[in-house]
Amino acid sequence: MVSAPRSQTWQVRSQQAVSYEIVETRGLLDPRNDALLAVPGGGRAAGTRLVVLDHSIDALYGTRIRNYFAHHDAAVEYLTIRGAEENKNIEQVMQVADKLNEIGTHRLSSPPLVIGGGVVADVVGLAASLYRRGIPYVRVPTTLLAQVDVSVAAKTGINYGGYRNRLGSYSPPPRTLIDREFLATVPERELRNGMGEIFKMALIKDRRLFELLETYGAALISSRFQDPAAGDDGVEGVAGEIADEVIGRAIAGMAGELEPNLWEKNLERSVDYGHSFSPLVEMRAIPELLHGEAVAMDCVFSAVIAANRELIRAEDLRRIVAAARRLGLAPSHPLFCDTDLVLEALEDTVRHRDGRQNLPMLTGIGEVCFLNDVTEVEIKQACDAMADLLDGPRDAASPVSAAGAQR
Amino acid sequence: MVSAPRSQTWQVRSQQAVSYEIVETRGLLDPRNDALLAVPGGGRAAGTRLVVLDHSIDALYGTRIRNYFAHHDAAVEYLTIRGAEENKNIEQVMQVADKLNEIGTHRLSSPPLVIGGGVVADVVGLAASLYRRGIPYVRVPTTLLAQVDVSVAAKTGINYGGYRNRLGSYSPPPRTLIDREFLATVPERELRNGMGEIFKMALIKDRRLFELLETYGAALISSRFQDPAAGDDGVEGVAGEIADEVIGRAIAGMAGELEPNLWEKNLERSVDYGHSFSPLVEMRAIPELLHGEAVAMDCVFSAVIAANRELIRAEDLRRIVAAARRLGLAPSHPLFCDTDLVLEALEDTVRHRDGRQNLPMLTGIGEVCFLNDVTEVEIKQACDAMADLLDGPRDAASPVSAAGAQR
Repeated sequence: MVSAPRSQTWQVRSQQAVSYEIVETRGLLDPRNDALLAVPGGGRAAGTRLVVLDHSIDALYGTRIRNYFAHHDAAVEYLTIRGAEENKNIEQVMQVADKLNEIGTHRLSSPPLVIGGGVVADVVGLAASLYRRGIPYVRVPTTLLAQVDVSVAAKTGINYGGYRNRLGSYSPPPRTLIDREFLATVPERELRNGMGEIFKMALIKDRRLFELLETYGAALISSRFQDPAAGDDGVEGVAGEIADEVIGRAIAGMAGELEPNLWEKNLERSVDYGHSFSPLVEMRAIPELLHGEAVAMDCVFSAVIAANRELIRAEDLRRIVAAARRLGLAPSHPLFCDTDLVLEALEDTVRHRDGRQNLPMLTGIGEVCFLNDVTEVEIKQACDAMADLLDGPRDAASPVSAAGAQR
Repeated sequence: MVSAPRSQTWQVRSQQAVSYEIVETRGLLDPRNDALLAVPGGGRAAGTRLVVLDHSIDALYGTRIRNYFAHHDAAVEYLTIRGAEENKNIEQVMQVADKLNEIGTHRLSSPPLVIGGGVVADVVGLAASLYRRGIPYVRVPTTLLAQVDVSVAAKTGINYGGYRNRLGSYSPPPRTLIDREFLATVPERELRNGMGEIFKMALIKDRRLFELLETYGAALISSRFQDPAAGDDGVEGVAGEIADEVIGRAIAGMAGELEPNLWEKNLERSVDYGHSFSPLVEMRAIPELLHGEAVAMDCVFSAVIAANRELIRAEDLRRIVAAARRLGLAPSHPLFCDTDLVLEALEDTVRHRDGRQNLPMLTGIGEVCFLNDVTEVEIKQACDAMADLLDGPRDAASPVSAAGAQR
């Protein structure tokens, strides 16, 4: 009766097609613009949709947003949550899930909408990806960083256990809507923060973008990426075309890098430039450093290593540092001079890259290679060089938050 | 200087290939079997692996498991968490994430291992799918339900806000290992629980499996799916081949249904049979009803609707009810006689199926169709019929848990 042990094996093989779009629009909150009503895949929403607002967006645009949906008699419920890195946590994700439950969100046809910066986009994205194991959502990034970087990403995430984005998912919303008019209320420091990611994109693959930043970066910040108004002579004039080109090149650059490697099967990613040492530094510096500020410092730190190896010329390094400063981005910070911390950051990054450094490294402005043999001595030398790049105290004119402005 | 508003659009399109296997093995905890050491994709693990044990597995097999890894000098750390539906929560997911952080889990090459029933498999699966936005893991289901159902699923999940599996993900482990020797320590009631899912699979697509259950189901439970030992005359003898065939047909049936629709783009799923009304009933009955018990009742409930519509013969319904009873599965429960509750359950299921009932309904034993026009009157009639199917008090010989047995 006893049967010999047999071994059966079953295989499951499948392919998931993922497609999403980033759509530029203007006058998004104008009732004549129906972009906020359309449901990805076509038609109007069934049932009630959840509209999640960043706290600062609610303060600045809450009335217009409510008027917009009221005008269209759309069935929506609102939830306001907090931006800023320290609020990128599981508690806010569960708050969104609670509300989705409460209003009886459908599997597909009542996609929630999130309007705000990167933190709330990531929090709502993660909640949507978990709810019923994934429902579609629509993302409206309102800060510069969110418009050029988060907007293209498939990733969602929260910080956990002292690590940045330690928990998350790959679940892009089918549609992201971008309206640079929101940038009119973004404070200067937040615009510089966004410039940190544009700066990175320029360095790794787009020399023309780098030159645009050198020439127009400061003026784009002071004009807040808005078209000059008639008779507006207070600010150095920058054509709207330049704002569109800078934002467009950053988005297109990011999309081009992500598309062939959306699930990061390949752990050599040039978009990780600026993100090798900064994640842990940023977490340790909360709330002092914003993400793009830490990224810009990491870009400089890596460029120092590249210059020390003579992968780039000393002249390129000087130009990179000068460009960062022109964008109002400090090239260095005391935490980047702390060799032990930077080595700890690299150690975690190596675990994240499955045992390899895979360090994107410039070979020129707009070009990268990958290194796997950066030594502790090189890190120490770079930390020492970062000490020489420390700026004075932060400009008092760039507060973390400003009344009447997004944070 | 003012530029006319332009509208740029960027598209990202990508394909994710997913492939995973369910491998039957014997003597998994025998040091000569290296299945637990192998890392999906080949080779041995780098760094320390987390081994998550179901509380009852730790009690029964903890020493053998620790001896196994010690024998092989494998770098592992252990975490023991609780099974049972009421522990399928975010707190246990975070406990696993904490431990993954603590031991410095790599992105790919130190996949955690989970050994236990469906609850711990789902909890660890969700933690792994969130950690670094997804790391591979290896699943070792040890209960009958987990071996025939969870083993094939791509899904992970936790209960939330009073709803079953309200939060989760699609993230199958690259490898699931099945050893039916674990079933030797599974208490009878847990084996019946697993039979609930096999019963469902038989009803929707496998008449031969249904007949095997009618003939051998009770004996398989009393022999705990084990090969008869020499001189073992106490239990009606069932050849190991029958146990293999029943488990194998259940797994193959499930794999065949999931493969073409892994991400549930198609919301008409015949494997949802038994899962239309039961999820809410099960949550309300916690901890009284086990999942497979509630599923079996839902199978009967749906068969009553089908019989009332004359989609199946009254004789088929009687045979289905009799088969459930032979498997030790009660066909009904007072909550299934509560029309308001069942209607509320259907309402949530309709939201989950994006506004449609998509009710899988038998047209015979082994065949389904889908209905979208089941009325409140039909639900009420079925609830009334369920009252007539209520059994007496549960057999005192089938306790919820038994000393020295998995729960």
